[in-house]
Amino acid sequence: MESRTMPTRLPESRTTTLLRGRSRPRRCGERERLEMGWAIALHGGAGDIPYSLPPERRAPREAALRHCLAVGVAALKASRSPLDVVELVGVATVDANHFITPENVERLKQAKEANRVQIDYTQPVKEEKPQEEASSGKGDSQIGTVGCVAVDGSGNLAAATSTGGLVNKMVGRIGDTPIIGAGTFANSFCAVSATGKGESIMRATVARDVAALMEYKGLSLKEAAAYVVNNVPKGNVGLVAVSANGEVIMPFNTTGMFRACATEDGCSEIGIWPSETDCVLPDPKRNLPTGYLNLQSGGPHFFEVH
Amino acid sequence: MESRTMPTRLPESRTTTLLRGRSRPRRCGERERLEMGWAIALHGGAGDIPYSLPPERRAPREAALRHCLAVGVAALKASRSPLDVVELVGVATVDANHFITPENVERLKQAKEANRVQIDYTQPVKEEKPQEEASSGKGDSQIGTVGCVAVDGSGNLAAATSTGGLVNKMVGRIGDTPIIGAGTFANSFCAVSATGKGESIMRATVARDVAALMEYKGLSLKEAAAYVVNNVPKGNVGLVAVSANGEVIMPFNTTGMFRACATEDGCSEIGIWPSETDCVLPDPKRNLPTGYLNLQSGGPHFFEVH
Repeated sequence: MESRTMPTRLPESRTTTLLRGRSRPRRCGERERLEMGWAIALHGGAGDIPYSLPPERRAPREAALRHCLAVGVAALKASRSPLDVVELVGVATVDANHFITPENVERLKQAKEANRVQIDYTQPVKEEKPQEEASSGKGDSQIGTVGCVAVDGSGNLAAATSTGGLVNKMVGRIGDTPIIGAGTFANSFCAVSATGKGESIMRATVARDVAALMEYKGLSLKEAAAYVVNNVPKGNVGLVAVSANGEVIMPFNTTGMFRACATEDGCSEIGIWPSETDCVLPDPKRNLPTGYLNLQSGGPHFFEVH
Repeated sequence: MESRTMPTRLPESRTTTLLRGRSRPRRCGERERLEMGWAIALHGGAGDIPYSLPPERRAPREAALRHCLAVGVAALKASRSPLDVVELVGVATVDANHFITPENVERLKQAKEANRVQIDYTQPVKEEKPQEEASSGKGDSQIGTVGCVAVDGSGNLAAATSTGGLVNKMVGRIGDTPIIGAGTFANSFCAVSATGKGESIMRATVARDVAALMEYKGLSLKEAAAYVVNNVPKGNVGLVAVSANGEVIMPFNTTGMFRACATEDGCSEIGIWPSETDCVLPDPKRNLPTGYLNLQSGGPHFFEVH
């Protein structure tokens, strides 16, 4: 496993972690991996995204997802390595001074004066909000996190997660960093990028647990992701993941998650809230019928593609 | 699982994480937990600790281990919760100004001038050492980390890990922080505290993996710890762990690890290098004979007690 972590000195700037999981050498007697083609999935944060999100706020985010997906797909089609792909998509390195704008300085000043921690720079500090509420992910405030996972036709996997941090957070705060095993993981089984409430994701070691359930308990990617998402408090987590076999899954137990995915066989989806016409990618080990409808209500929402 | 994390603002000061894993409610048909009594284990860092360590440097460390063990044992005997116990032992909160001594300021100045990162404050910067070597754990430089795990007679578990950081490290560096899942983990199966090279421990999600192998693969604590320590590059990791059944294990693949443990049945051990008379605590699920000798050579070193 190779990892690249790119912290920056400013607490309010982005931190990105990239991980690569090489395809596993086939063991004697083991069946040849089913050729599933490449696949890619990405998220732009999960949270209490209101269904009333105005078109002028929704459109640029969907456009950004579309753009990032196109960048990733083009790179996979050009046979770039999954690690290069996810780095090209989740990463846009800028000078730290980029973040020091008059608006951000003013917001930091407001937050310091109010002795409050705020999720991101998109809204001014609200006087009436207690600290817990201000940082509890109301509205679409979890959108500071972006992540991408990719697998190539040979089963090589990679994951990248990048977080935006909090206004007036403690210097060196851990919860908002894409920690290996918590928000990001990749090995020879799958690649996972999670988003949501950092402390809940850390406690559940979300990304590693999806991989551990596949590696140690023999679950499919779908089963493993469902188990993990179900065990994190509702409203706290979303994730995107791909398996070495080319499965793609994007479950979340929040109101919504900005997300997109594409596979080599031509499927491409972009979504925010739960889809009523999710179609399930069959687990190739289990010979499920292809393309059946999966109409879910309650519990974690699955948005899967074929 | 409850967790307490206590980062401080100064990058060169300590960061501590505490985790509690409650005992699991017994399921229908599940055998009653074997009453094994309380157990505690702690470490003061692992690394290339030279066998030639002078008595004047060895003695105070053994005394510190003895003192910490006594504090923990007294708390367990007084029926304090394991979380309180580990907090009392690995935690001594001091004002951040405590770290700003003339010696430390001079060492930071030296390190900055040399553009080097140094493990701890115990030695001056050595001009001839390249950065990688200076931070690779030569000598007894990993001793900045301390950790403690404990289990009470009811199977309640807790783990705490505290790290000292590096001189002139990047602000907010993640590798030196006791990240949940990497250096620290506790659930209803076991409590683990790891020490060694932070980046290797993060990549392997060492502490969570020990617990995951027990939880998802059904391994014993000993089997799980051996698997994990074997899969981390030699010289990079040591850990102490207790299981809900009262097993204690302290494996490491470094030259040595400052460590100590005690159990309710009166066993108490303090060690630095591999012991030739390690005795194995039987896994109660497997009906192994009690107290047999385990003379190991090579591989990870086990130092277990009955």
